[in-house]
Amino acid sequence: MAAEQKSRFDPNFTDMVINGMGPNTTPRNRQVLGALIRHLHDFAREVELTVDEWMAGMKFINELGAIYLTSNKTRNETHRICDILGFESLIDEIAHKIVSDTGIDPTSSSILGPFWSPNAPFRPLGGVIFQDGVPPNGRVVKMHGVIRDITTGKGIPGAVFDIWQASANGKYDFQDPENQTPNNLRGKFRADEEGRYWFYCLHPTAYSLPRDGPSWQLLQLMDRHPMRPAHIHIMVTHPDYLGCTSQLYPKDDPWVKSDTVFAVKDDLVVEFKPFSDENGAVLELEYNVNLVPKGYKPKN
Amino acid sequence: MAAEQKSRFDPNFTDMVINGMGPNTTPRNRQVLGALIRHLHDFAREVELTVDEWMAGMKFINELGAIYLTSNKTRNETHRICDILGFESLIDEIAHKIVSDTGIDPTSSSILGPFWSPNAPFRPLGGVIFQDGVPPNGRVVKMHGVIRDITTGKGIPGAVFDIWQASANGKYDFQDPENQTPNNLRGKFRADEEGRYWFYCLHPTAYSLPRDGPSWQLLQLMDRHPMRPAHIHIMVTHPDYLGCTSQLYPKDDPWVKSDTVFAVKDDLVVEFKPFSDENGAVLELEYNVNLVPKGYKPKN
Repeated sequence: MAAEQKSRFDPNFTDMVINGMGPNTTPRNRQVLGALIRHLHDFAREVELTVDEWMAGMKFINELGAIYLTSNKTRNETHRICDILGFESLIDEIAHKIVSDTGIDPTSSSILGPFWSPNAPFRPLGGVIFQDGVPPNGRVVKMHGVIRDITTGKGIPGAVFDIWQASANGKYDFQDPENQTPNNLRGKFRADEEGRYWFYCLHPTAYSLPRDGPSWQLLQLMDRHPMRPAHIHIMVTHPDYLGCTSQLYPKDDPWVKSDTVFAVKDDLVVEFKPFSDENGAVLELEYNVNLVPKGYKPKN
Repeated sequence: MAAEQKSRFDPNFTDMVINGMGPNTTPRNRQVLGALIRHLHDFAREVELTVDEWMAGMKFINELGAIYLTSNKTRNETHRICDILGFESLIDEIAHKIVSDTGIDPTSSSILGPFWSPNAPFRPLGGVIFQDGVPPNGRVVKMHGVIRDITTGKGIPGAVFDIWQASANGKYDFQDPENQTPNNLRGKFRADEEGRYWFYCLHPTAYSLPRDGPSWQLLQLMDRHPMRPAHIHIMVTHPDYLGCTSQLYPKDDPWVKSDTVFAVKDDLVVEFKPFSDENGAVLELEYNVNLVPKGYKPKN
């Protein structure tokens, strides 16, 4: 097939375009833009992209930027398109792929998504993040675990566990100002001397990407659903360790096998267990986070 | 290198994303979107695209659509980006690649560009297209030739030769309302009984793509100039033949070897010869156009 294509179309055209880059192109730009041009051209030749398809693609791209502008930069459909094509998840894998030789695997990272906030308050260990109270249908979870060093297996005192989640209606505080005050269902916790953390949150709720706009259009072309499995976002950091941004998913969620942004990884699927305590918890989630010391290099 | 990349990153991820398409995806959408996803992922893995680079790419795409919107759809930077990456020229090749076995090659097509108008008036054979007169520095050309059938070599009576060009200041009528009336330097001519056409136009003038905005930014990253060689646009049609949209370039133009939109092909490079006649022409351009009958299939 490739050979046939090469005979049908000018075999020198793509090289000519790439070699048009001048001597002052930086080596990295030459590498990235050269590969981008080659893959775009190979794509077009491979499927023999028609003029109408190309025009439809340009129209689609122009709509992405238009929505970003008219939404006052609150709706980034370009980001969402990257997500539903698995692109953000892949970029995340490329950025964070670390293979350890210590017997403890680092906790997998997952995509940050658009809802993290730099303003989440520190809360005391054992506190709650549902500052507006427990919503109807909300189920309180006692979440706890140890933040560990992959090279020693020991807890990391003072590591920071930052959590954010949507409420039982599937909305984050940003999206739901009528029902939630700023920083509801967000909080930072500083691990104790043994690297332990514990607090109360909600069992997470699955939600749909918007059912309008370009990303919904693309999902329909691909005959795909717009659902993300229920998840809790976490960002775990300490000055001496590589930070870990990730998401945790209930193993019994109906969308966990078909997350529409491809952000589920095996070690991020967790079990919420029946539980009860005097603080109203009805479920328990134990999750240990394994961090990589800065400068760590596996021996093999 | 490819094998090494496959071991470093999850080898199943891209297939998982592609196989996420549901049973109601059309076969063509499955083919086009599947290939697009595979090439985008291969690109990211190949260059190990960083989070910052991906973010810069999203910002760039959002700017394209924003300019299209704020310019009231008169400035399509997405189209221009396709052009400077050679994408439109490649799509054009894919759409129009015809190999003949008749000894006469069909005239190569080239990109339409954004300045064709459906409103160009018919003018009589031997007429002028510079309806606003000859501008300062304008050089009058007598252009003529035969529109031929590639299978017979004979002229095609009644074929329509549509020509448009920028004025001596490098601007089309649309872009230059202070100096040009609508349809200046545009015209359609109907070939005579022997397929001949002739009229008067101007020697074309090289011009620069805009030196601001995203496409200029990308050209700078690639250390490339923004110049298009001087050119005359043509669109030659007849109901019984495949139409030919193309551009002609003076062989002595300084940018003909490095057209920033990669639209030059060998048979489109022409020679303007010294000439003079009673109509003020100082140059002559003979150009024969070879059209393919509809339904033509080469034998081998």
